[in-house]
Amino acid sequence: MEIKDTKKISSSKLFSMTGGEGQYSYVNNSSFQKMGLDIAKKLMQEEITKKLDIDKNIFSPPNVFRIADLGCAAGPNTFFLVQDIIDAVKSKYESEEIEFQVFFNDHSANDFNTLFRTLPVGKNYFANGAPGSFYERLFPKASLHLVHSSYAIPWLSKVPEKVQDKSSPAWNKGRILYENCKEVEFVYAAQFADDFDTFLKARAEEMVPGGLMVLLFPSVQTEANPPKCIMVTIFELVGSSLMDMAKMGLVDESKVDSFNLHLYFPSAEEVKTIVERNGSFKIEKMQQLDRLMPVIEKLALVIRAASEEVV
Amino acid sequence: MEIKDTKKISSSKLFSMTGGEGQYSYVNNSSFQKMGLDIAKKLMQEEITKKLDIDKNIFSPPNVFRIADLGCAAGPNTFFLVQDIIDAVKSKYESEEIEFQVFFNDHSANDFNTLFRTLPVGKNYFANGAPGSFYERLFPKASLHLVHSSYAIPWLSKVPEKVQDKSSPAWNKGRILYENCKEVEFVYAAQFADDFDTFLKARAEEMVPGGLMVLLFPSVQTEANPPKCIMVTIFELVGSSLMDMAKMGLVDESKVDSFNLHLYFPSAEEVKTIVERNGSFKIEKMQQLDRLMPVIEKLALVIRAASEEVV
Repeated sequence: MEIKDTKKISSSKLFSMTGGEGQYSYVNNSSFQKMGLDIAKKLMQEEITKKLDIDKNIFSPPNVFRIADLGCAAGPNTFFLVQDIIDAVKSKYESEEIEFQVFFNDHSANDFNTLFRTLPVGKNYFANGAPGSFYERLFPKASLHLVHSSYAIPWLSKVPEKVQDKSSPAWNKGRILYENCKEVEFVYAAQFADDFDTFLKARAEEMVPGGLMVLLFPSVQTEANPPKCIMVTIFELVGSSLMDMAKMGLVDESKVDSFNLHLYFPSAEEVKTIVERNGSFKIEKMQQLDRLMPVIEKLALVIRAASEEVV
Repeated sequence: MEIKDTKKISSSKLFSMTGGEGQYSYVNNSSFQKMGLDIAKKLMQEEITKKLDIDKNIFSPPNVFRIADLGCAAGPNTFFLVQDIIDAVKSKYESEEIEFQVFFNDHSANDFNTLFRTLPVGKNYFANGAPGSFYERLFPKASLHLVHSSYAIPWLSKVPEKVQDKSSPAWNKGRILYENCKEVEFVYAAQFADDFDTFLKARAEEMVPGGLMVLLFPSVQTEANPPKCIMVTIFELVGSSLMDMAKMGLVDESKVDSFNLHLYFPSAEEVKTIVERNGSFKIEKMQQLDRLMPVIEKLALVIRAASEEVV
């Protein structure tokens, strides 16, 4: 069994989903993400139409509406999602001729070939790939009307240095995430706060004044005294299985120690605090989707670019 | 030996260059194209700066300059070219903060993964892929400031039907292009005229008023009584080699008959006539580059979107 040392993997490699269209490809194994999208769809469409009822001026002439899906993978969920967004926008502008330009973003190691080759036939938008990390600027200033991201924001920009440093009290021995260790969890939380703030700053520059951002997070707990996050529990099981395998001599223990995921599952409170501290966006709606999805709780966050921020 | 029946190949397959980075890949076998670009570079930069001296208003606020390279393949020539264009534009706007958004276009079967993974480190533009045929609309209205295409326009949208029809007088028996057969050449020329007009119409909608288009054609003859086009001669040799192989029984003759390239090398006069008849663009400069490239004559065409066409 091969376990990779996450220190030695390039950032873009860390992020990529399995390409192609085979049995284990992301394209054929993303129904879990699809389920979340179906649930969030109605909420998102409601918010878009509500927003457009109030302010039709988020269209800049000459009537181009630009949408970005950040962390889109190789499809096909992103196609359903984009179509839902376009349908919602179109329903408010029936008489007007609006063109849609869609930017599919993911790391440059993403399988864009599969994405492009499986674009829906007869799509009613201009499709573009936008390769790169969403922790950097990806688009020109004030060019996007709607930004969406599903399940991608929990992927940190990197594994925090401290959890890979043997001399640090936060060295992540025998674990692949931050379960059951407050010191490690704190380091992960700090990395998330930094990364999400960086994300918001970049988007604040890229979005038109009053533009809309829709973010979907997996596995969020909003209760005051949260039970253990289910996603972290899953990775705890994976981590302890690896350690058992190490004890059985099937895998080198030092490799388990050096392998860490760069994932963090924030609470709704944490997300709210970072958005407010960042100051570029106003939270329009924050809704937990757990009633419909009992296994994995999710949070849909709809935020609006503060118009004073981007001109 | 396998020869494909061009009637049975999907349009996107017909166009794709060999992907990846191997010995026979386009990436490692495009130095011929690179040579042409180097020669055209100075001319193109001169025209861009001249144009911007006259009219700085082709920038729409908020200071985004959008460039499309149509038929870019998998790199790396397109990167050099785009950088040359940006350098020329930047030199005219030293004090101003301009952001560049670049759209790399080719068919959806193109190897965009290689293109994205080899993007220059430290590039000073936002990079996007734009998959699709340039004989269709690819971009929103009035969104592009500069459009470039090198060597791609001679690729027709399809093999003309008549040359594949056994009952037609233009049936292309024993040939893979239109050499030495006026009837077949006429059908190819008509297809080119249609396709190039379609191309110009789509770009006229997509470009900002006064935007600049730079097109590079291989193998153009401008003399009144043209000698045989060198590119056509090359394909004549390939075609007759295939016929010799058919006679030797190495390949099925009917397969040679059904195989046709969808390439046409227009004369400068033909190009000029189609641009003028189309009416959306004005030819600013048309220059033959044969003095520098004795083997393959080339034509650089710089045309400007007529401002009345696109508002």
